[in-house]
Amino acid sequence: MFNSKNILAETPRRQPEGLRCGFAKLGLCCTRCPQGPCRIDPFGYGASLGACGAGADNLAGRSTLEKVLAGSALYLEESWQLETAVAATIPAGKLSLWKDRGVWPGPAGAEMVSALAQVARPGSSRREELELKAIRVALAAFYAGLAQQEKLYNDSLGLTSLTTVPAGPGLLSPEVVSIVIDGSRPYLAAAIKKQIAATATPIDNYGARGIQLVAAGREGDYLAWRLGLPYLGNEAVLRETMAAGVVDLVAIADTSGVLLPFQLTGSRIKGVNLNEIKPDGSNWEGLAQELIRQALAAHQEGPVISSNYAFKPHSLLTGWQQDLVEVLAGEALAKEMRGIALLFLCEGTGTVNLARQLLEEGFLVLAGGCGLDELIAAGYMGQVFHLGGCRGLVRGLAVAAAVQGKLPLKVYWPVIGCSRAYPGIATVIAHGAEVFLASQMANFISPGTAGLFGASCHSGSAAEEVAAGWTTS
Amino acid sequence: MFNSKNILAETPRRQPEGLRCGFAKLGLCCTRCPQGPCRIDPFGYGASLGACGAGADNLAGRSTLEKVLAGSALYLEESWQLETAVAATIPAGKLSLWKDRGVWPGPAGAEMVSALAQVARPGSSRREELELKAIRVALAAFYAGLAQQEKLYNDSLGLTSLTTVPAGPGLLSPEVVSIVIDGSRPYLAAAIKKQIAATATPIDNYGARGIQLVAAGREGDYLAWRLGLPYLGNEAVLRETMAAGVVDLVAIADTSGVLLPFQLTGSRIKGVNLNEIKPDGSNWEGLAQELIRQALAAHQEGPVISSNYAFKPHSLLTGWQQDLVEVLAGEALAKEMRGIALLFLCEGTGTVNLARQLLEEGFLVLAGGCGLDELIAAGYMGQVFHLGGCRGLVRGLAVAAAVQGKLPLKVYWPVIGCSRAYPGIATVIAHGAEVFLASQMANFISPGTAGLFGASCHSGSAAEEVAAGWTTS
Ligand code: XCC
Ligand code: XCC
Ligand code: SF4
Ligand code: SF4
Ligand code: SF4
Repeated sequence: MFNSKNILAETPRRQPEGLRCGFAKLGLCCTRCPQGPCRIDPFGYGASLGACGAGADNLAGRSTLEKVLAGSALYLEESWQLETAVAATIPAGKLSLWKDRGVWPGPAGAEMVSALAQVARPGSSRREELELKAIRVALAAFYAGLAQQEKLYNDSLGLTSLTTVPAGPGLLSPEVVSIVIDGSRPYLAAAIKKQIAATATPIDNYGARGIQLVAAGREGDYLAWRLGLPYLGNEAVLRETMAAGVVDLVAIADTSGVLLPFQLTGSRIKGVNLNEIKPDGSNWEGLAQELIRQALAAHQEGPVISSNYAFKPHSLLTGWQQDLVEVLAGEALAKEMRGIALLFLCEGTGTVNLARQLLEEGFLVLAGGCGLDELIAAGYMGQVFHLGGCRGLVRGLAVAAAVQGKLPLKVYWPVIGCSRAYPGIATVIAHGAEVFLASQMANFISPGTAGLFGASCHSGSAAEEVAAGWTTS
Repeated sequence: MFNSKNILAETPRRQPEGLRCGFAKLGLCCTRCPQGPCRIDPFGYGASLGACGAGADNLAGRSTLEKVLAGSALYLEESWQLETAVAATIPAGKLSLWKDRGVWPGPAGAEMVSALAQVARPGSSRREELELKAIRVALAAFYAGLAQQEKLYNDSLGLTSLTTVPAGPGLLSPEVVSIVIDGSRPYLAAAIKKQIAATATPIDNYGARGIQLVAAGREGDYLAWRLGLPYLGNEAVLRETMAAGVVDLVAIADTSGVLLPFQLTGSRIKGVNLNEIKPDGSNWEGLAQELIRQALAAHQEGPVISSNYAFKPHSLLTGWQQDLVEVLAGEALAKEMRGIALLFLCEGTGTVNLARQLLEEGFLVLAGGCGLDELIAAGYMGQVFHLGGCRGLVRGLAVAAAVQGKLPLKVYWPVIGCSRAYPGIATVIAHGAEVFLASQMANFISPGTAGLFGASCHSGSAAEEVAAGWTTS
């Protein structure tokens, strides 16, 4: 029924591009309590308030808080119990500002549960208050949650080092069994990598001459950074390589729905929904063994469907070195660079222009995210430093802290791929950055709240503005 | 512009009764990630899946998990750090069942953050898995969260005792300054109560002959139970008494939007949005003093708008005695009663018929919730024991545990008022109860999942089925 061309067939029918609910797009729908669902009519002749009395501003604030909560939870999953943020890691001057504004957080889990109550609560708080709460949750997620997670991973998986890995779909080949994994279960990925390293000899009884573990999908570039894995790309790239039949086992948590069409069409590719595997306490070694076995079996099952890929990988300089923060900060100050530019790229379109313009203008540029593909292909990753995931913001903020506010901080997030972007954006606003955002983000933080932190947000049409460079300050 | 008759004016315009979004009512809309908003068309003409591949079952499961999370957060607000549930409090046989089903929870905060990640995660888990997670969160909320909260309140506010308090709008009078507070800030309420007791003499320089603190609104009956306060009723009753001008200061968190029309019309009633006051660490005594001062000032400002109330209060037997669980359980077993019936009444319509029928059939009946007004007015509270809030489920479950499964457990929740109902319903399902629910709850837990716990759910048209008694088993 399906051929390789329409393996991503339109049956079952997916969301039409142009046809999404306008109330949701305008942030005027609320389904948070049993008195709903409620809609506010932007034209003024229907309802002006929710059943509980919530108005458009309240809904906007709760929406922002909800988004930041969602992203924070995806980052932290079962790391709720992490300690309070360590004040020493905070840039000078920020700590007192954040305490003044009431956004210096307690433990991440505490902040998240308390924020959840505020989202759930019908018709109350002022928008600014909700936005401040969002910033607080975000700061907790980054300074307590993610910062601590990085330390934990450093301890258990070892420090990373600067290393060059193959990147892009060209790193695949029909003769190498490929296991693709996203960034949701780093311990599992580490176990698979370890076992593969222990099975380094060519595996020719399955028709393959090797087996590799490859990072892709959500937080894929973080995993590549953390474990020095080859980096395939984001879900769109992953889907294409699955359609071409050049991967064998795909283990992902987010958007595991991408596995469905392949399962429906009886594809030989083995899909594993990582959401069904708990992030902690699982038997990683046993599971790694099992997945390797399944990947090998899947590879044996059938011929490659289409092999018109040019098997020529790009390369990505990734990883970190221990003193990189100080080195980069020192260099930026010494060279009197224009500022620090952090690029968070959920998708790659138009990113080359943006990076080039920033480099030309003399910015220190660091980038992370699912959408590094164009930068990688154009050979920019090298001049541009790999932050290691959108959660690499922790490293970007460390560099910003190390220049002690002497250089401006610009942050670009031109496309929003998943909810993890939201706490990131809230965090950099708290740092007083100049933030350039996807057009859908116009209502994320009100200018007044951003101003409390000396930050400013520009939201525009992503493609055009990225193409235009967005760098004229 | 406004007169007292239409003080609850339609300007600003509220949600029309008959016109709510059908996609939301059917649970077929998702706005949880940036790829949305997504809608599934039940008629097969439009989209069948979300952009991430989520289907109707996945959306149903995430919706249930989201609802339970919301209610749990409202109950626990900043009590996230509470300890793990104590196994000893669990009914015999349940612990092993719950461990088998994977729903025996860890600490409440942990469960909630992990659940939040699952709600936020695009297109993955199976519905049953999400429902089990919801049950897990609910068990954590009740056995870790609320149970611990009750102990904390017992320690800091003292044990309650059986006491009779005035109830209903008849407890108000234009000559008594009335402060109304909901159940969201028990420490504040206790502080106000204490200061009022210290000011017991008539206050005639404001035209009043007394001042009283009264519980109403969300979790109002819990507060009345906890502190022995007069119990006014739910928000609808509160709104009427505000319109009649017989209250002076209203301090509420949930639906603080009810204050808005009065503020717009320049009403003398002082409204305080408790959501702006943190649940812990505040200066309760100072705040209590301030609110009493404001209430007295508000009372002085103007005449009562309309006083066609019959100032004849009903009474409510509330509170608990230390061995009441054992006493009730022992009595139920000795008299070989039909079973234990727990009534959670967010609204009062039709509840008298239900209670009468259950009593006639020989059930031990306990009730809690915002909608006790009809039972109180009909004099049933006495025969029917006051659980003390919908969170009084902890006490109801204690009684059910004390009969050691020898008597069936029926739970009725005919109207869903706020999200707190959801973890309550999930919890009683985990206990294998026979549950009778509002008609909108048809899709809350799938029969398969309920069956894993020996529970069954009946959802019907609330009014008719409550009137019909719902008690034919
Ligand atoms: Fe990949 S979509 Fe999500 S993971 Fe991060 S960059 Ni990967 Fe964007 S916020
Ligand atoms: Fe009052 S609406 Fe909420 S508080 Fe509980 S009973 Ni008060 Fe119903 S679940
Ligand atoms: S919280 Fe308010 S606006 Fe939202 S669904 Fe409930 S009543 Fe409607
Ligand atoms: S529930 Fe809200 S967002 Fe979803 S379709 Fe209906 S109006 Fe739109
Ligand atoms: S989670 Fe899936 S269904 Fe929900 S908004 Fe995102 S893409 Fe759409």
